[in-house]
Amino acid sequence: MTGLLVMYSNDPPTPQHLARLQALVPGARIVAADSEAAAVGAAAGVEAMLGHRYLRQVLPRADRLRWVQSTASGVAHLPTDVLAARRIVLTRCPIFADTVATHAITLALCMLRGIPDALRTQARGTWGPRPAVPPLPRTAMVVGLGSVGQAIVTRLRPLVPRIIGVARRPSPVDAMCNDVRRPETWQQALPEVDVCLLAVGDGAENRHLVDERVLRLLPAHAVLVNVGRGSVLDQAALLRTLHDGHLAGAALDVLDPVPLNADDPLWHTPRLLVTPKSAVFTSDRQTRLERFVEEQLERAVLGHTLQHVVPTTGSGQPSREAAIR
Amino acid sequence: MTGLLVMYSNDPPTPQHLARLQALVPGARIVAADSEAAAVGAAAGVEAMLGHRYLRQVLPRADRLRWVQSTASGVAHLPTDVLAARRIVLTRCPIFADTVATHAITLALCMLRGIPDALRTQARGTWGPRPAVPPLPRTAMVVGLGSVGQAIVTRLRPLVPRIIGVARRPSPVDAMCNDVRRPETWQQALPEVDVCLLAVGDGAENRHLVDERVLRLLPAHAVLVNVGRGSVLDQAALLRTLHDGHLAGAALDVLDPVPLNADDPLWHTPRLLVTPKSAVFTSDRQTRLERFVEEQLERAVLGHTLQHVVPTTGSGQPSREAAIR
Repeated sequence: MTGLLVMYSNDPPTPQHLARLQALVPGARIVAADSEAAAVGAAAGVEAMLGHRYLRQVLPRADRLRWVQSTASGVAHLPTDVLAARRIVLTRCPIFADTVATHAITLALCMLRGIPDALRTQARGTWGPRPAVPPLPRTAMVVGLGSVGQAIVTRLRPLVPRIIGVARRPSPVDAMCNDVRRPETWQQALPEVDVCLLAVGDGAENRHLVDERVLRLLPAHAVLVNVGRGSVLDQAALLRTLHDGHLAGAALDVLDPVPLNADDPLWHTPRLLVTPKSAVFTSDRQTRLERFVEEQLERAVLGHTLQHVVPTTGSGQPSREAAIR
Repeated sequence: MTGLLVMYSNDPPTPQHLARLQALVPGARIVAADSEAAAVGAAAGVEAMLGHRYLRQVLPRADRLRWVQSTASGVAHLPTDVLAARRIVLTRCPIFADTVATHAITLALCMLRGIPDALRTQARGTWGPRPAVPPLPRTAMVVGLGSVGQAIVTRLRPLVPRIIGVARRPSPVDAMCNDVRRPETWQQALPEVDVCLLAVGDGAENRHLVDERVLRLLPAHAVLVNVGRGSVLDQAALLRTLHDGHLAGAALDVLDPVPLNADDPLWHTPRLLVTPKSAVFTSDRQTRLERFVEEQLERAVLGHTLQHVVPTTGSGQPSREAAIR
């Protein structure tokens, strides 16, 4: 491997990381791009891209590109068709599924246990009243059983007696679910659901999968959480539903659209908790990401199988695997 | 059974509940006391007390008393020595351990995932910044393995790779813990703990079990939760510790003392979340309590073994069972 392009979407690579990458490929030219121009300028000699930022712009000039390591878990927003046609290997980075799943369960429990109300009570300097809280949930639904959905099911298992999983195809956690529903039948189970967690990828077919009809099929005491893609939920419908007094609460780590100003009514919608796309974050995130990428590059150098390769179909099209997770 | 005294600590019994109790003991006189005077006035003919409110005042006049059904899980604050000496059976009510454990885990996750900061950000109508959050916890410590501690361990198991249980004697969840510590050795494990959950009963020997020394032995990034008894924690020491920047956060559902006014600095201590003794509450709490008491009375009437009898030692003294849970 003679040319590497490094460009992560959030934080830039640390010097220590770049040094460790260089040690794995001693003769290679490693470019840490900090702009689109730098990325495109470096494209010609690049065999591997670590991070998918500016991928679309880089692709036309990157004749020697053989491997893209995304920093994302879901890759439906990437040009997987082009990559598959050019036989460029795409690998995902689902190593933060544990963090996202923990955040999802935190959001659900927050709403179920009245934490936002308790914080307001505390701010007033009073000991009570106790927040109004629903019974402990008996049935949870996890929509999307990709790496995040699977991690949610595992962690949720001792917290609720019954879990309904929803996915297009079998997953490793099906046996941990009491019921697994396919897209044809999942809505029929909604009236039984006390807490509904969305961990659905961003394929176009999932846009507004949770619309007003779905929200109204949930019981009035149910709690809804979204840590997947914002576009999966009809946000305007959710706000209407909450204003109408339906649902005990909702918590969103993703918004679509993100309000443009502080006056937007979304911020003050009753029984709505918003976290700023922080589900994937911990203070050691960059360290974990860099360690994972270094391990992947070492596998590539040693000729070992890469982890989390996005499968492609025989036709050169990516499988639907990526789209629904 | 000819005389029953009903006096629960929180909500009064519903008429439906009283009717169902009466149906179980058709000939008996059932008094639902709403004051100390009413309770003491009814004491003479009482064979069973459902609820422990005014128990100390009732005892001297209740010559025929044979059974007290407490509404609490821990009964160390009750006159167990007098009850044991008079061979009055005392039964606990640990049926809300699931609720308290769920609340405890909610509080821990809230602090670990920066929810109070996210709520303040939301209130300002801004999308970010992301709250500063520690790495996902690797080691949790559960102090006290009574019914609540056991329920915490069960629910926490898939959320952390390592659980250290702390208890005076073996418990059914010891096998689910990676390490079980006794009072002689628990403090040595504190520097390894990322999240510490207190579910300790109110025996006098537990007062300020968690003092400033213990708090300082926890890592600076650790999170502390108390859902047991307020007296177990040296509250002033916790506030000092938080003000010094030690601990990533603390969440208390119990306070000792409870501040008398809204100006008390406790309410605004940094990185401190307070819930108003709501760990045991859900909207169906009274329904669940009444159903459990009815089942216990049915057992008593049928001569079956009562559930959750507080054991007494051969000497007529209650065992230490009650005190440390």
